[in-house]
Amino acid sequence: MEEQLIEKVMKEVMKRVGSASSSEARPTAKKNDFNSTANLLQVTEYVGVSMGDTQGIVIANLDPAIHALLEFDERYRSIGVIGGRVGAGPQLMAADDAVKATNTEIIRVEMPRDTKGGAGHGNLIVFGAEDVSDARRAVEVTLELLPKYFGDVYANDQGYTENQYSARASTCLNKALGAPVGKAFGLILGAPAVIGMLMIDTAVKAADVDIVGYGSPSHGTSLTNEVFIWVTGDSGAVRQAVISGREIGNKLLAAWGEEPKSLATPYI
Amino acid sequence: MEEQLIEKVMKEVMKRVGSASSSEARPTAKKNDFNSTANLLQVTEYVGVSMGDTQGIVIANLDPAIHALLEFDERYRSIGVIGGRVGAGPQLMAADDAVKATNTEIIRVEMPRDTKGGAGHGNLIVFGAEDVSDARRAVEVTLELLPKYFGDVYANDQGYTENQYSARASTCLNKALGAPVGKAFGLILGAPAVIGMLMIDTAVKAADVDIVGYGSPSHGTSLTNEVFIWVTGDSGAVRQAVISGREIGNKLLAAWGEEPKSLATPYI
Amino acid sequence: MEEQLIEKVMKEVMKRVGSASSSEARPTAKKNDFNSTANLLQVTEYVGVSMGDTQGIVIANLDPAIHALLEFDERYRSIGVIGGRVGAGPQLMAADDAVKATNTEIIRVEMPRDTKGGAGHGNLIVFGAEDVSDARRAVEVTLELLPKYFGDVYANDQGYTENQYSARASTCLNKALGAPVGKAFGLILGAPAVIGMLMIDTAVKAADVDIVGYGSPSHGTSLTNEVFIWVTGDSGAVRQAVISGREIGNKLLAAWGEEPKSLATPYI
Repeated sequence: MEEQLIEKVMKEVMKRVGSASSSEARPTAKKNDFNSTANLLQVTEYVGVSMGDTQGIVIANLDPAIHALLEFDERYRSIGVIGGRVGAGPQLMAADDAVKATNTEIIRVEMPRDTKGGAGHGNLIVFGAEDVSDARRAVEVTLELLPKYFGDVYANDQGYTENQYSARASTCLNKALGAPVGKAFGLILGAPAVIGMLMIDTAVKAADVDIVGYGSPSHGTSLTNEVFIWVTGDSGAVRQAVISGREIGNKLLAAWGEEPKSLATPYI
Repeated sequence: MEEQLIEKVMKEVMKRVGSASSSEARPTAKKNDFNSTANLLQVTEYVGVSMGDTQGIVIANLDPAIHALLEFDERYRSIGVIGGRVGAGPQLMAADDAVKATNTEIIRVEMPRDTKGGAGHGNLIVFGAEDVSDARRAVEVTLELLPKYFGDVYANDQGYTENQYSARASTCLNKALGAPVGKAFGLILGAPAVIGMLMIDTAVKAADVDIVGYGSPSHGTSLTNEVFIWVTGDSGAVRQAVISGREIGNKLLAAWGEEPKSLATPYI
Repeated sequence: MEEQLIEKVMKEVMKRVGSASSSEARPTAKKNDFNSTANLLQVTEYVGVSMGDTQGIVIANLDPAIHALLEFDERYRSIGVIGGRVGAGPQLMAADDAVKATNTEIIRVEMPRDTKGGAGHGNLIVFGAEDVSDARRAVEVTLELLPKYFGDVYANDQGYTENQYSARASTCLNKALGAPVGKAFGLILGAPAVIGMLMIDTAVKAADVDIVGYGSPSHGTSLTNEVFIWVTGDSGAVRQAVISGREIGNKLLAAWGEEPKSLATPYI
């Protein structure tokens, strides 16, 4: 009976503790559904939180000293800000949709080395707007769409693959990555870097796409443990390249024994 | 009865384990009170350990090859070294007090990307001295004061605010940040970066201060997920700016559901 | 009796959980013995996994677009790739032995800031070969030797010392660190950086060696919390320098209360 009791306790303990510790090793992207508690906080600038420990705020009338310090375009007295601990691609994709849908412009993209001990980036994205309601709407759209773009991030304790696809890139992807506006966009990314190496080779062999740029630990990243390319071309080909990279990348990750899992719901 | 027993065990387990795992997600700043165990270790260079996984040592007579390699000023044959995994601001503030109190000079400040998986920096600070007893005293003072300067660091699982204030900056803050010597100094810092954005705007709106510099993921940091400014001016105004930034930053952090807590005892 | 039961359960819990959480704070270098499961994965490029969350792959015929993108030497159509989350020195040492043993060349070394929240690097190392069987052999040798070179890495929750020694450096250590080919090589490294400071001073005082280079958070590293030198000279002197650094570094780490432990079996 004592043995049974110990077993029962252990099961409970490992359930509570095990889930906590595995969420540290991999990109933690809790599904905090976008949810504004501004009234509760009594902070008018607060907009909401979303996956990837991401928060969005607006500043209606940025102080002139801060405006000058950060060298923001003078046209925009209002800003919207997105910032998270985990992820860069999902936030960029969601912000790209947001600039399409609103009267805003991306005026700053910065990528810290973060992921809470994981292999990749965190993020800081600033929308400029002439009117605060536009900035607020852009932030809201970004937070709402964020779970979608975590859908093709697959992670286990050793690393992850990040796979993104858009039929028409907009000005956020253009500013951050030089992606051609209005053209198809695909991101093929693996971490640790060795995973990404095979993914990018497989992706370009699988479909006739044009490489726009690449990232590796000492090239175009904030020293992350990732290798990735982003591509353009015929939308069907771009999609095929992303899918082919994703498939082989997830297999390599599984070599460590644990199947990588989507952090939300796949969309590609 | 079995249920009660399980509950009792669970409580004990979560207490021990919970505190361990939450201290990994946030800046771990255990209150290892400064405590010299040099005799125990049989290492004459060892001075002590303190909060933030920080250790202090002295080297009475640095090897000439190392002296030349690190390009240290030739006047100082003795050095004191402070280095920690968690925090940069607290160590800089404490070292600034230490140079005021001793016959030493700061000859090196380096800021790794660290915090044990958190959003910020670790630190390496080197004091130069003509006499080893001066170097030792500077290290001792730094380790002793460290818990004070963790007092206005507030953290939860998503990030932290760091708030520092000095009525009179000395040569450590000057060397590391260009702060005017003998003038009031304030640091307003939030992580993730989005938190810091609203803090710095709020701080400069709240009080008439002069911005000395700023940090963001790709500007003046080691790719940390932080935004911050440091300011000078009338000491009352500087203090007010810091307090205003702290207040709004802690509210934004609380939007994730958990109130950020001081890592020690607030001093501002 | 109840007390005894609780004690029993706690012991079991802390054993399972304690080992899991401590392996996150320190460089996790699970002894996944090199083990090819390529058939299982149905990925012909997969070679195996080893310590430090390291994986090895080969690409027989790298796509010309990727070849040009990464600016690899045109002579090598086949590549072998090693990449891991934890460690840089162990992988470099093992790859150095691999280039000695095979008809390959190191064509890329990149060092992300990683260690899964620890103080140091991850790694990406690329072998070029004219024939895929050579690339595969180099990757196999590296993965097989990796546990050896984790043998003189000693870690606790605060940091680690890394100690490496080779009687004859080859082209991998030469390419990555400028180590003279065919000469003795020693690495003396401590994390956090303060530990490394005393280690390097002690090492050069202990033996007559020539310093080839050094790393610190803002010099020659990817912003890691480490200080280290690598040295050459008479092989006995190099070995003595490494051993002296290791001894004092492990003592300083132990000042935090926990004795640092070898991650595998010491070889020096």
